[in-house]
Amino acid sequence: METDAPILLATVSFLSALQMARLARRVGLCRLAHNIQPPSVTGPPEFQRIFRAHQNCVECYPLFLVTLWTGGMFFNEATAAVGGLVYMAARQIYFEGYIKSGEERLLGFYLTLGVFATMTLLTMIGLLRGILLKYFHIHL
Amino acid sequence: METDAPILLATVSFLSALQMARLARRVGLCRLAHNIQPPSVTGPPEFQRIFRAHQNCVECYPLFLVTLWTGGMFFNEATAAVGGLVYMAARQIYFEGYIKSGEERLLGFYLTLGVFATMTLLTMIGLLRGILLKYFHIHL
Amino acid sequence: METDAPILLATVSFLSALQMARLARRVGLCRLAHNIQPPSVTGPPEFQRIFRAHQNCVECYPLFLVTLWTGGMFFNEATAAVGGLVYMAARQIYFEGYIKSGEERLLGFYLTLGVFATMTLLTMIGLLRGILLKYFHIHL
Repeated sequence: METDAPILLATVSFLSALQMARLARRVGLCRLAHNIQPPSVTGPPEFQRIFRAHQNCVECYPLFLVTLWTGGMFFNEATAAVGGLVYMAARQIYFEGYIKSGEERLLGFYLTLGVFATMTLLTMIGLLRGILLKYFHIHL
Repeated sequence: METDAPILLATVSFLSALQMARLARRVGLCRLAHNIQPPSVTGPPEFQRIFRAHQNCVECYPLFLVTLWTGGMFFNEATAAVGGLVYMAARQIYFEGYIKSGEERLLGFYLTLGVFATMTLLTMIGLLRGILLKYFHIHL
Repeated sequence: METDAPILLATVSFLSALQMARLARRVGLCRLAHNIQPPSVTGPPEFQRIFRAHQNCVECYPLFLVTLWTGGMFFNEATAAVGGLVYMAARQIYFEGYIKSGEERLLGFYLTLGVFATMTLLTMIGLLRGILLKYFHIHL
């Protein structure tokens, strides 16, 4: 094991993968409850909503991982890890809201956008600082 | 090239990306065979099954990569790499089964769950050990 | 911040995540323009095309990241970073073409395949060279 490896980023990544697996499992359980046989992905509105809620999380997930790791390596590991936990909370709120109604997904959606915007800004600062240091020898 | 970089994890990641590309190609070939013009994603049951089989692999793939790398860095690289190869086999069995019928996807599905459960457990051990060592100076 | 960390790969990854976020946003704007309420994903052909264009990018994205990082770490960082920028251009051409018609997605599609094929070849060379060096002490 590498002791200098970014264990906070690894731990948050791993926890977020567990969260994604749990969300996928809930879609599967909803499938069973409504007796929707694969490969069908159509069903009552409840199923459509949970299915889309999960799909949206699937679409966001690689973007989250990239932001978490680039921000964590070039801005600050602990800050990025905390951002990752807030992201996970925002996604959970989004998912639980979307299950209730399309309208109630919006709170978690805007929270997700807010976390992404913050992490994006910090990552930009970190990358800019890193590029200036490595290629232009300018230390900010 | 970094000689201390985790080349086994990189190789398995790369092979799994090739596998994903091949699965995507087979969906495209099935599309051509049934003359289903994009952006349509509806067609005969054969197409629906192969389309969903691939989608399921797409959903699982980032979770697999996170588990492979966190397990490989904090538990053991070779063990995680072997787990990754078994995962690829499980996904291939799933895909080939799903093409035949919705029922026949189950073997590969349970195999996938089994690999994920094993890799998750090992990763947890590795991360816990790493956190205890780094932040609490407890060497297990 | 780690000064020896692969900042070019991180920067290209980060830029590609921003591109993915922008593509997702355009699907959302198209949704609003046609008043397609979530969780519905059906609508006029314009919406179907932009929705599928984005989905295709979502499917390719983890494969791209894996190729970028394995190629960047084991072949050459700058080459992989340039390949990543070309990939981003190819995906943008694909997306803009697909919005116009299913037929016009093909140019960007073949460009994407070409970038993937090139990056795959370079990554293979890098990984093979790395494995021969690390496990067989053969220096090519």
